[in-house]
Amino acid sequence: MENKAFFMQGTNNMVVKDVPVPQVGEKDVLIKVDVVGVCGSDVHYYQHGKIGDFVVEGDFILGHECAGEVVRIGSGVNNIAVGDRVALEPGKTCGKCEFCKTGKYNLCPDVEFFATPPYHGVLQNYVIHPEDMCFKLPEGVSNAEGALVEPLAVGLHAADQGGVKLGDTVVIFGSGCIGLVTLLACKARGASNIILVDVLENRLKTAKKLGATSVINAKEANVIEEIERLTGGKMAHVSIDTAGADITVKQTVDVIMPGGCIVLVGMTPKDEVEFNFMKLMGKEGELKTIFRYRNLYPVAINAIASGAINVRDIVSHEFDFEDTKKAFDFVSNNASDVVKAVINIK
Amino acid sequence: MENKAFFMQGTNNMVVKDVPVPQVGEKDVLIKVDVVGVCGSDVHYYQHGKIGDFVVEGDFILGHECAGEVVRIGSGVNNIAVGDRVALEPGKTCGKCEFCKTGKYNLCPDVEFFATPPYHGVLQNYVIHPEDMCFKLPEGVSNAEGALVEPLAVGLHAADQGGVKLGDTVVIFGSGCIGLVTLLACKARGASNIILVDVLENRLKTAKKLGATSVINAKEANVIEEIERLTGGKMAHVSIDTAGADITVKQTVDVIMPGGCIVLVGMTPKDEVEFNFMKLMGKEGELKTIFRYRNLYPVAINAIASGAINVRDIVSHEFDFEDTKKAFDFVSNNASDVVKAVINIK
Amino acid sequence: MENKAFFMQGTNNMVVKDVPVPQVGEKDVLIKVDVVGVCGSDVHYYQHGKIGDFVVEGDFILGHECAGEVVRIGSGVNNIAVGDRVALEPGKTCGKCEFCKTGKYNLCPDVEFFATPPYHGVLQNYVIHPEDMCFKLPEGVSNAEGALVEPLAVGLHAADQGGVKLGDTVVIFGSGCIGLVTLLACKARGASNIILVDVLENRLKTAKKLGATSVINAKEANVIEEIERLTGGKMAHVSIDTAGADITVKQTVDVIMPGGCIVLVGMTPKDEVEFNFMKLMGKEGELKTIFRYRNLYPVAINAIASGAINVRDIVSHEFDFEDTKKAFDFVSNNASDVVKAVINIK
Amino acid sequence: MENKAFFMQGTNNMVVKDVPVPQVGEKDVLIKVDVVGVCGSDVHYYQHGKIGDFVVEGDFILGHECAGEVVRIGSGVNNIAVGDRVALEPGKTCGKCEFCKTGKYNLCPDVEFFATPPYHGVLQNYVIHPEDMCFKLPEGVSNAEGALVEPLAVGLHAADQGGVKLGDTVVIFGSGCIGLVTLLACKARGASNIILVDVLENRLKTAKKLGATSVINAKEANVIEEIERLTGGKMAHVSIDTAGADITVKQTVDVIMPGGCIVLVGMTPKDEVEFNFMKLMGKEGELKTIFRYRNLYPVAINAIASGAINVRDIVSHEFDFEDTKKAFDFVSNNASDVVKAVINIK
Repeated sequence: MENKAFFMQGTNNMVVKDVPVPQVGEKDVLIKVDVVGVCGSDVHYYQHGKIGDFVVEGDFILGHECAGEVVRIGSGVNNIAVGDRVALEPGKTCGKCEFCKTGKYNLCPDVEFFATPPYHGVLQNYVIHPEDMCFKLPEGVSNAEGALVEPLAVGLHAADQGGVKLGDTVVIFGSGCIGLVTLLACKARGASNIILVDVLENRLKTAKKLGATSVINAKEANVIEEIERLTGGKMAHVSIDTAGADITVKQTVDVIMPGGCIVLVGMTPKDEVEFNFMKLMGKEGELKTIFRYRNLYPVAINAIASGAINVRDIVSHEFDFEDTKKAFDFVSNNASDVVKAVINIK
Repeated sequence: MENKAFFMQGTNNMVVKDVPVPQVGEKDVLIKVDVVGVCGSDVHYYQHGKIGDFVVEGDFILGHECAGEVVRIGSGVNNIAVGDRVALEPGKTCGKCEFCKTGKYNLCPDVEFFATPPYHGVLQNYVIHPEDMCFKLPEGVSNAEGALVEPLAVGLHAADQGGVKLGDTVVIFGSGCIGLVTLLACKARGASNIILVDVLENRLKTAKKLGATSVINAKEANVIEEIERLTGGKMAHVSIDTAGADITVKQTVDVIMPGGCIVLVGMTPKDEVEFNFMKLMGKEGELKTIFRYRNLYPVAINAIASGAINVRDIVSHEFDFEDTKKAFDFVSNNASDVVKAVINIK
Repeated sequence: MENKAFFMQGTNNMVVKDVPVPQVGEKDVLIKVDVVGVCGSDVHYYQHGKIGDFVVEGDFILGHECAGEVVRIGSGVNNIAVGDRVALEPGKTCGKCEFCKTGKYNLCPDVEFFATPPYHGVLQNYVIHPEDMCFKLPEGVSNAEGALVEPLAVGLHAADQGGVKLGDTVVIFGSGCIGLVTLLACKARGASNIILVDVLENRLKTAKKLGATSVINAKEANVIEEIERLTGGKMAHVSIDTAGADITVKQTVDVIMPGGCIVLVGMTPKDEVEFNFMKLMGKEGELKTIFRYRNLYPVAINAIASGAINVRDIVSHEFDFEDTKKAFDFVSNNASDVVKAVINIK
Repeated sequence: MENKAFFMQGTNNMVVKDVPVPQVGEKDVLIKVDVVGVCGSDVHYYQHGKIGDFVVEGDFILGHECAGEVVRIGSGVNNIAVGDRVALEPGKTCGKCEFCKTGKYNLCPDVEFFATPPYHGVLQNYVIHPEDMCFKLPEGVSNAEGALVEPLAVGLHAADQGGVKLGDTVVIFGSGCIGLVTLLACKARGASNIILVDVLENRLKTAKKLGATSVINAKEANVIEEIERLTGGKMAHVSIDTAGADITVKQTVDVIMPGGCIVLVGMTPKDEVEFNFMKLMGKEGELKTIFRYRNLYPVAINAIASGAINVRDIVSHEFDFEDTKKAFDFVSNNASDVVKAVINIK
């Protein structure tokens, strides 16, 4: 059993190194990693060496979207067996703080999250993970789909926070990977009318393919007027920003109906945005945010297994493990063409 | 413009009579009725002359599931035009009591509901109805589908009360019309695993056709054990009784997981049922009920229009208006074969 | 029966005129007005002739916080009798739109609200109002308290939107009338720790008297650090801005804990505020707003009657009806000293 | 450091024995127990040797309501120091199952709960407990109050499940210890009108003293009619059964208004009760249950510290540690006179 891992070494650089196969603790399982998705945050670390206060120090393994096969289990593991295929929820939490105990474990201050410094990620052959954060994939769900559960969980959490429900009209700003998984989540919850807004035609085409009712190219149309037209003046129950642009954050309030809900998902380049709170108050609107997700891996896997969500078409590019650096360079240089790149480790 | 109406005259008897075309009030619209669904409650009045405290006095027009075309509007009607096709929500409420003002208008003590004595129903050529209780049908939604919005709203309300959500496992007792619309509602909200229980094989076949994940014939299998098997011992997030049998009401608690929810929809023959509340408490389960529905016509129409719900396959039998008595006699005598009979008025 | 009314005539000017006693419609009651509270919005119209898009045209009667005695009832009035004392909820809504039907009637686009142009207010001897918007005052609740139900309802709605609950820590920015009724609402819901922030010492003294756990003078202390100290670093479950200053809106996000909730109540001078959404997202905080209130008059009256809320101490100044202009001039010139002025009509 | 513990030895018998002072694990604290409350379940084990499937085997230490002083801490304990006084939440849960992770840890199947066989209780001088289940008592809250947090948490959870809110009318069946803490919880959440029903005059007197708006002696009055009278025919928003009698469970549905909520807290002698579900459906009522409580120790301590809840007057009898057997015998023989007995260990 050999373990190789890709480490970023400074920015825009990567090396492969031999690392030990990790020891399995009592409640841990050892996973042979099969598929790893490349997330925007991975690429951001690769390019900039940090995100906000999280700074990469020394050589660092990226990757936190993954699935693979269990090859060894700890003595206290009861619900997972060698041979099971599992998706790994990347955050290990304390289970003891008030956030964990009230079910909001995504807010645990002591979380250890794959590929968020100082915790290494999963771009390696073998990783250990606690049993309770490994979720079995049923027969009809592939490891590639298992790796995509992570971004899908973000979309599911966004739809959840927005209270998206059967019959709703939803506007989603941004048609990148997170916009698209949010679209899938809203559709699976029964939203009738889902309008995607972006500035890139190829992304909007993908949105259409994945089930958007309408798409708006913000370069070519007046977004607010177009949404008025598409909704017969009623506007949306929920608007969700995944683009993280000042202009889209601002527009979220224009496109909701009275009593509507805004959900912010995308990170804006600056911390502050000028926002029309008076308009929000006039509509008695509410604004929610998401920080990662919680308790959604089982939901995502069930939804994929039942066919309610088809996550496969999110994958636009695939790379072999040995081409991991190439994959990161490609995604760095072709951000607008890539919906989701995955690395097959084999 | 001539108006004919079918009146029940005593039990199991019906006559057709000429009645005046009703006057249109300021906020009313006049509808040429096109399709009327036959509900179990209509048939119950036809057979027994009463339901609980509601007693039919004199000749009485049945029918409360309908859609048709607007042919005249009152002077104060703004949102509906002659020529619009509409589904009619059958209850007129006061808009002023605490229930109306808090959005629970289905609990309004002064409701006037089609075909609930003393208010006549819609088995006639022309009816008037308040503008705000008429819901426009978009191009792709037929009048037959419009008439089916009423039973569908019951299923939607049941799923709503149960909080059925994406990824859930739901057990539905009873695979008659209401069980099936509940199935459609749960599916449209993203439930992954929907198990229908009935004692009639033909009904279970329809359930399968409409999307049930599994069906159980309670005459042939141990229901609880079978649900244990199908859920890997986890049992259901939500169980919904639409059968209205003592045994099914009792079983609702056996099939939910800890923290699960029961929804009672079906009326039991006797008011009281022996129920294992200790088991419910041990699971900290909750039990909800529904009384008709509220605010669900727009949701239902959106869901049908978007394809999230296909309600057409609920219709098992169709009759012409002049055969209305025949329709009621047929349904009375073939209850277990009929999912939903509709009467086309033309 | 004579009816005199005070009309604003241009800005900062008022005249008294004889007006007819209004005719009582079928569902209306005629009220002899006893006490009218002076609201900040009344004073704003008096000084500026408009609020946002609402512009006073011609002579205009102000006042929307009131209570009085029923002296005549319409033929269709069932629940209110001559001699009853009532508080008047000022907005008449349509009862038919989707907002009314879903219980959010405060968002009804057709609302007719006392003293919001073009609808005259209640600074007159007699007004009519629909029965269902008049709420009986029980024996122990005075007309003065009845008039204060209106501002109290704003505070109750703010606490409701924020989900303030037993044991919570709440920070309230602004210790004017609305800040103080919000304090009373939070206290009555069981909040343990309520911190008021203002820049005026006399207002903070009133807050202390009305039950604030702590007060912070933002001119003298670093607000964020002080709240950190007072909460042992845990910060607040809910922060509520009633001050409507850019700086307080910005600070709402600094003082909530992860998963916390912000409620915006105060109108800011400019529509837009630079807001740190990245900080809100890092905490997965949510931001709610209020637009007036709904379904809270019964709650407010019950809470006053039971002693859970003592609203009397809000009143800082009283005027006689003939001094109404004097009252408005006084409040205009002494905004920071006045918590709540009321006009006794007698 | 000597440790003595009282063991029940067969039913209605108790012996004191020397036991080792327990070893402190990394995340544990050692508590010198000061006050232990005697719960109905303790007495039930003492008298019958079992509750449902939980059977006492061998000598067994009772007691799960307690507070005391921390005298030793594990190496990994960060938030609690020697000398702190703490209340002990009695259930240790896994932190890993779906119930723990979704915040419903009270449903954890692997919970280890003090004095629920096979886990010994706290009627001893020293116990260890995990840091995160020990809650610091602030200066103004005594150890006796700390011990009472446990039953209070039951009342808080009942009020929580019922959604009791400001201005509500609540009917509580049963005026024993749990009925009374439920009363305190409802009052602290702002309920305006709280009606207690019991058959023992002395218990109803205590209810009045603790803040019940009205009391009904079910032996002397027709409960339903009396509640109709007291509520002007409107009935209650919430009814809560703490009595666990067939008749009170049945009456819960009679006393709620349409849309009202029932909460079952008391265990009935038989598992099954004949219940009028048709009446519940006619009101669209809901029925909730509670199983212990979750996340309520901080709330309870805050509420006691702020004065929102005064739990001291619940204590009707006190005993010294050496009289523990006498205490249990007394409570066994005087059930209806004892609200809450506590044992002071010193």
